[in-house]
Amino acid sequence: MNATMTPHELRQKIRLGQHSGNTSGYSEGYVQCNLVILPVDWAAEFLQFCQQNPKPCPLIAMGQPGEFDLPGMGVDLDIRTDIPRYRLFKDGSLVDEVEDVSAHWRDDLVVFLLGCSFSFEEALLNDGLDVRNISEGVNVPMFRTNIPCKPAGRFSGNTVVSMRPFLPVDAIRAIQICTRFPSVHGAPIHFGDPSQIGIEDINRTDFGDAVSLKAGETPVFWACGVTPQVALEQAKPPFCITHSPGCMLVTDLPNSRLAVM
Amino acid sequence: MNATMTPHELRQKIRLGQHSGNTSGYSEGYVQCNLVILPVDWAAEFLQFCQQNPKPCPLIAMGQPGEFDLPGMGVDLDIRTDIPRYRLFKDGSLVDEVEDVSAHWRDDLVVFLLGCSFSFEEALLNDGLDVRNISEGVNVPMFRTNIPCKPAGRFSGNTVVSMRPFLPVDAIRAIQICTRFPSVHGAPIHFGDPSQIGIEDINRTDFGDAVSLKAGETPVFWACGVTPQVALEQAKPPFCITHSPGCMLVTDLPNSRLAVM
Repeated sequence: MNATMTPHELRQKIRLGQHSGNTSGYSEGYVQCNLVILPVDWAAEFLQFCQQNPKPCPLIAMGQPGEFDLPGMGVDLDIRTDIPRYRLFKDGSLVDEVEDVSAHWRDDLVVFLLGCSFSFEEALLNDGLDVRNISEGVNVPMFRTNIPCKPAGRFSGNTVVSMRPFLPVDAIRAIQICTRFPSVHGAPIHFGDPSQIGIEDINRTDFGDAVSLKAGETPVFWACGVTPQVALEQAKPPFCITHSPGCMLVTDLPNSRLAVM
Repeated sequence: MNATMTPHELRQKIRLGQHSGNTSGYSEGYVQCNLVILPVDWAAEFLQFCQQNPKPCPLIAMGQPGEFDLPGMGVDLDIRTDIPRYRLFKDGSLVDEVEDVSAHWRDDLVVFLLGCSFSFEEALLNDGLDVRNISEGVNVPMFRTNIPCKPAGRFSGNTVVSMRPFLPVDAIRAIQICTRFPSVHGAPIHFGDPSQIGIEDINRTDFGDAVSLKAGETPVFWACGVTPQVALEQAKPPFCITHSPGCMLVTDLPNSRLAVM
């Protein structure tokens, strides 16, 4: 029921206050996006940050200043009401969590939609692979690395990665599958020894939950959408809106549309 | 000079007895093939063995019984004279090594051409990766594994792999590149812990030479064209001709033609 609800139906329920939680598992087969909203005088630098760091910050859509309907992303879409929960930041600090940002909307705000791992996880599951954070029912484990992003204006920071364990033969298959989806983080950026990318303890996550590594499995690391959030916290723009973790924008775009081949 | 010689020129020199050695590094950019020649009453089972084990035995071309010119593989090609050195087998045992098999030709012989790692190694080098056996000027290290091939008639045996060490980030790139070339062994089949595929000591090769593993590198394993040779030794057909290791058929087919995308 949740899985088969159309994205438009789900967005309507969210808009009416009938769904305010996680969107994971809802409207299967459709692209879900990370949200970043910034004042126009910060938008060009953030756009350049995304352009220079496409693996952690894969830009799927960007609005015009003041535009909240994002044509092409969904029928009758209103970005101010169609996400279950938003976070408001002032000078880089979280100041509020709300279910509607209409009261905070301004004509100088620019919407960015970034790809999310839900799309490639679905492709991995459909191929018969075990996505550990899903099979164990927890949030994906995420870690800060020592891999610097290419800075753009006031935005900089190190790459955050998500980790999913696989047997090597399945890791090779996962690399092939994810290569087809560059706009949802694409191929992994590392596997094996976590210390090579600055992770000290694979059992101590910086975000999300730990998952079990079974015998013979190797940890595989993907660039993660938390990277731009860390860059935003460091850049401290006077005003910023994001989605709350796990509460994404569900678009009308089929996941298969993101496959480059 | 050797690298830029056309395949046709090189085959003519080989035919005239002016080149009887390795073909590695000759006629860069063109597909080189492993050769297997079997009597027709063994051909159907070997074809099925290749069909069922496409990663170690990627079939590029197969002749009709008695056919020695392999149309489409090269201008004025004669498989009996255009390979620098051949091996003759009787009942699975090596009985002779010769530079011309015209005297041994029979109307019931069937030619098989299988893809060779030279093609994907060129793609890796062109992408800026270090292929260790090439940079160290030795034969690629090869190992017997515990991965069984799917048997076909009298043909069976375990997969032989070749190994090339890479940093994980380069291994991911190598997986992407080789995925484009299924007819020359395709993507690797394993990386990391050699014991997972039955290799006891990464420094003790079963065929070829050892190469150095540098700090942070992981061994990456590809299905290898020695696999069908091992299957042939076990099946012991009464008569069989192969190329001598490293002395391949150089075809007129550009390597890029093997890319599936």
